[in-house]
Amino acid sequence: MRIALDAMGGDNAPYEIVWGGAFAAAQTADSIILVGDEPQIKNAFLTRHPTLRPTPNVTELLQSGKLKIVHTDESIAMDDAPAAAVRRKKNCSINVCMRMVKENEADAAVSAGNSGAMAASALFILGRIKGVSRPAIATVMPTANADRPLLLLDAGANTDCHYEWLREFATMGEAYSRLVLGPQKPEVGLMSIGTEDCKGNELTKRAFALLRHYAPTLNFKGNVEGHDVFEGNIDVIVCDGFVGNVILKTSESAAHAIGGWLKRIIMSKFIYKLAALILKPALRQFKRHMDPEVFGGAPLLGVNGNVIITHGSSSARAIAYACKAGSRAAEHNVAREIETNIAALPPAPTEEELEATQRANECSEK
Amino acid sequence: MRIALDAMGGDNAPYEIVWGGAFAAAQTADSIILVGDEPQIKNAFLTRHPTLRPTPNVTELLQSGKLKIVHTDESIAMDDAPAAAVRRKKNCSINVCMRMVKENEADAAVSAGNSGAMAASALFILGRIKGVSRPAIATVMPTANADRPLLLLDAGANTDCHYEWLREFATMGEAYSRLVLGPQKPEVGLMSIGTEDCKGNELTKRAFALLRHYAPTLNFKGNVEGHDVFEGNIDVIVCDGFVGNVILKTSESAAHAIGGWLKRIIMSKFIYKLAALILKPALRQFKRHMDPEVFGGAPLLGVNGNVIITHGSSSARAIAYACKAGSRAAEHNVAREIETNIAALPPAPTEEELEATQRANECSEK
Repeated sequence: MRIALDAMGGDNAPYEIVWGGAFAAAQTADSIILVGDEPQIKNAFLTRHPTLRPTPNVTELLQSGKLKIVHTDESIAMDDAPAAAVRRKKNCSINVCMRMVKENEADAAVSAGNSGAMAASALFILGRIKGVSRPAIATVMPTANADRPLLLLDAGANTDCHYEWLREFATMGEAYSRLVLGPQKPEVGLMSIGTEDCKGNELTKRAFALLRHYAPTLNFKGNVEGHDVFEGNIDVIVCDGFVGNVILKTSESAAHAIGGWLKRIIMSKFIYKLAALILKPALRQFKRHMDPEVFGGAPLLGVNGNVIITHGSSSARAIAYACKAGSRAAEHNVAREIETNIAALPPAPTEEELEATQRANECSEK
Repeated sequence: MRIALDAMGGDNAPYEIVWGGAFAAAQTADSIILVGDEPQIKNAFLTRHPTLRPTPNVTELLQSGKLKIVHTDESIAMDDAPAAAVRRKKNCSINVCMRMVKENEADAAVSAGNSGAMAASALFILGRIKGVSRPAIATVMPTANADRPLLLLDAGANTDCHYEWLREFATMGEAYSRLVLGPQKPEVGLMSIGTEDCKGNELTKRAFALLRHYAPTLNFKGNVEGHDVFEGNIDVIVCDGFVGNVILKTSESAAHAIGGWLKRIIMSKFIYKLAALILKPALRQFKRHMDPEVFGGAPLLGVNGNVIITHGSSSARAIAYACKAGSRAAEHNVAREIETNIAALPPAPTEEELEATQRANECSEK
């Protein structure tokens, strides 16, 4: 697969990005196209990456064509308004990546840049899949079950959602989970404040009625709650982008705080430090388990092409994982699968039918 | 202070509840009134609690009046619709607790029962504070800063909120935080998806404009995001009850999963187990730091009286902490303070003023 990698996006661009791309090119069957300012990219390769092992042989990769550089000197500044900037700066690196996907010169686009700019550029250049109202950012999260990561969407692209969008998120999430993450028949849940059918707010109660209608097609399992996020008992959770963003960031905050507490307590006594030394490999393994980097970035689902958004602070290692995610999405043609699945959906229920389902679900006390 | 404790509410009622009440009576200056079925309560005291130390001397406490039993044999079944049940069963234990607060026979009510029933009973018997549209459940959460716990509200009482309610939550949360949790001038944040003024959904953008208007009075610090939940950089976070409930449960889920991963990795090798043995006191301390029990239940703010709701699975220890929280709320007369603060608020902005503030806050690209 050919991955167009935005070399200029992210807090650590271009250094971590280009080394991550080189690492992916060296370690996988994919070829990586670095899109950005060529002098800056070449300059970044002059300083060997301090932690990536084995260090990729950049000269060889460039010669063999496994690694390519596509030059563009337009870039988006940190204080540019993202949507306006991608429209104004036609040749900024993100736009060039998207155009390569559009014109079949690349199979997926990957960027650690501003996710708003990313989404705007994807919409502007690739366009939406037929039947999708709003693209969504899906995030892969670790769970207590190592073999069953969770796909959560929308993780922040759409703050206020129509209930029908949540059904679209379910269709898109089901396809990505099944094709890229492994489960043959992913189970889909709706984020709510209790698992009972009647629980929720106005948005989720209506979405519940709609999802229930499509339950056999979407393998919809009903409401889930915050307790289910890390349980490993569900494959896909849909919610509006406000709630998804809060879940994602709260989880990161909890993991960070818990790690900090543990460290502070261990550092408080010499004997604890000694024990921690013995536990070091275990603690490293523990840290890796919690590390969102290995899950390889968040797909932007619903656009005509495979697009992976990664954290702004992505390291070279995270970039390499994101390229791998882009490659897998392209390999399984997720965008096409979503389009097919949407076209194959049974007819939508009428407003009256939805209303009736919703009334039947109301908690008994009301 | 006199605490009316619902002996019949919660998964572990009456056993854990009554022992928790006895422990609180023995260890603090408060007197505890156990409200529930007298034979069941007395029967529970026949089996000494396995972990509470020092074991309270129940006979002595009952004789001295530090511990009392108020008999009622009506109770709410698990499958009763809560709001209807508290209206139908006039003498159920929750209602009796509330009436004791109302009639000044108790200074606070504490229950581990169904929080919906609790809120319904409080509204029905105690009524709302003037100027409060909807009571809210506030939850105290641990943060990276041990001296700065977070008060999060609403944690689940109101799923769909009007933006003005979020301002009321801020007023109520500020009062509780200042009087009970310690900070002299609590800082209040609004849960959003980024810290910039322009970030949020329709609800929070409007609430932001309103809170900005009252910023000097409420010490409103602007938007916060999920990353701030455990940072210890803010005292009060307001959000709608759907989002609050998701934050609370997701955090519990993350802590549970992280603990599980750590345990599994440590148990995987003999040498790790050995090191963990040395670390045992540290790990216990760590567990205690994460333990929500010590924060003593969630106040139901906005009703005319001090009401503490605790987790349905509360242990005796959690109940004792909840009684303590009830006592502190009563001591500082939180309900009265909220009423006074609401009455003293400067005049509300007009819809036009709010509209203008909101427009001025929009992100530049829009």
